[in-house]
Amino acid sequence: MMAPKYLTGDHAAIESFIDQFETFLFDCDGVLWSGDQLFSGIVETLDLLRSKGRKIVFVTNNSTKSRAACHQKLASLGIPSNPEEIFASAYSSAIYIARILKLPGPKNKVFVLGEAGIETELRSEGIQFIGGTDPSYRRDITAEDYKLIADGSLLDENVGIVLAGLDLHINYLKLAIAYQYLARGAIFLATNTDSTYPSNNTLFPGAGSISRPLVNMTNQSPLALGKPSQAMMDAIEGKFKLDRQKTCMVGDRLDTDMKFGLEGNLGGTLLVLTGVSRKGDWELNDSAIVPGYYIDKLSDLRG
Amino acid sequence: MMAPKYLTGDHAAIESFIDQFETFLFDCDGVLWSGDQLFSGIVETLDLLRSKGRKIVFVTNNSTKSRAACHQKLASLGIPSNPEEIFASAYSSAIYIARILKLPGPKNKVFVLGEAGIETELRSEGIQFIGGTDPSYRRDITAEDYKLIADGSLLDENVGIVLAGLDLHINYLKLAIAYQYLARGAIFLATNTDSTYPSNNTLFPGAGSISRPLVNMTNQSPLALGKPSQAMMDAIEGKFKLDRQKTCMVGDRLDTDMKFGLEGNLGGTLLVLTGVSRKGDWELNDSAIVPGYYIDKLSDLRG
Repeated sequence: MMAPKYLTGDHAAIESFIDQFETFLFDCDGVLWSGDQLFSGIVETLDLLRSKGRKIVFVTNNSTKSRAACHQKLASLGIPSNPEEIFASAYSSAIYIARILKLPGPKNKVFVLGEAGIETELRSEGIQFIGGTDPSYRRDITAEDYKLIADGSLLDENVGIVLAGLDLHINYLKLAIAYQYLARGAIFLATNTDSTYPSNNTLFPGAGSISRPLVNMTNQSPLALGKPSQAMMDAIEGKFKLDRQKTCMVGDRLDTDMKFGLEGNLGGTLLVLTGVSRKGDWELNDSAIVPGYYIDKLSDLRG
Repeated sequence: MMAPKYLTGDHAAIESFIDQFETFLFDCDGVLWSGDQLFSGIVETLDLLRSKGRKIVFVTNNSTKSRAACHQKLASLGIPSNPEEIFASAYSSAIYIARILKLPGPKNKVFVLGEAGIETELRSEGIQFIGGTDPSYRRDITAEDYKLIADGSLLDENVGIVLAGLDLHINYLKLAIAYQYLARGAIFLATNTDSTYPSNNTLFPGAGSISRPLVNMTNQSPLALGKPSQAMMDAIEGKFKLDRQKTCMVGDRLDTDMKFGLEGNLGGTLLVLTGVSRKGDWELNDSAIVPGYYIDKLSDLRG
């Protein structure tokens, strides 16, 4: 195991680090901000990279937001960005369904467990869907529903895909219906499989936990379209035409961000210590994911 | 592996089978009925066993019903029973919490994910609880809730137990709150861990799937108080003072009912083929659960 190189305070190492790469992929929460709190020096650090001609892509597993909504979130925190620089798991899922999976119609509708961000991105790729934020699914299950779900009359026979994201309105009815589609052969996709969603310095249920009842019922795992899934990396590479050797993934989690970059054979991986993973976590187990570099905080890149 | 003995049509074997036991523990769904359809000859078969002086106990993992509600369900199908003959997983959970766990107060309240049946049984054992059917938890999570959950002001500091059953009103708010209690050290219990709930000849999410998001978030599994957990068998033995050698478990599932009886070292286990498990399923894998007896349908016991 090669130990990761520590960059904080090492001006020469920082300069040579930045020089190697054309493109930086940034995880957001835990790297740029925590919750609604922007870390200091972030705007200046991104400006520095841009001034040196580096391309920036914001890569997030948050599936509740469309690219436009992510752009607004960045703007609200004072981070200038372009919606085209944003790659979120809802968008990644839409790209996968429309351009890679390409199920023949009419059995290619998507049943969505998730919020508006997923719907926006599915629409942007011309994908038909049901579920999602439709109020008719945001209600209690009734005695009659059991019968109508079982005999199929509450189902749309053209659903061929179940896409599970972070659904803040998850309920028994939606889980029962999603299960029926899967039992009848629908393909099981997830925007991402993060077990938790960090907020307010604690954890809330993540998209990966919302889809767990279905995993348990079907003994199937969904194909995940967020980090660390390489389906997301392939989609990013296709869209941005990046040279993997000249690309560096920057993130705060070994098990998603660093794994994503390492398995994608990127030229570099940089762990920042302002989020989930701590210094030395890469030594904790044998199958350790070891980043190429680590740094106390992103703004230390300013040297 | 001893092959199970086939009873259907074998009068002598049936007589000697019945003679061996004082008590029969009956699983309900798949043995006595399916959905709302009573199998033919069930009432007569139970009458026959009672007329021979056999004790009958109905043992069910359905956690949405109290014993009184189970009694009503039996009555509605025409099966005479006494509420004292019923042992359901909600009751089993209440017994475990009140008589075995016995957490010292004041930190011994239960946060319930589940329906009225659990509340009725907790009340019957004098256990304090919150959550459950309380309408204040049956709502969408708000932006403000994240803060109040994180800082603890939406939590009851006296909760020491999270009990997860089949909650037909499961939502993100309840999962987020239940997670907080677990993260703060509450004991994790489940009425049962059946992944599915059979109804209308198909499957719906079971209690074990409802608790999966919490398992995924905490990397902890709950102690289950339903079949095949031996905590339930111990509670049944304590309540009915049964002689395990003279007790037979009757059910339709190898992985819950038969496992429950075998691990409980009961004198007998009888698989009926009117439910989930099929003839020969006990040969399917090496760690096979092999019942002592099997029979096409329960009413074949009438010889």
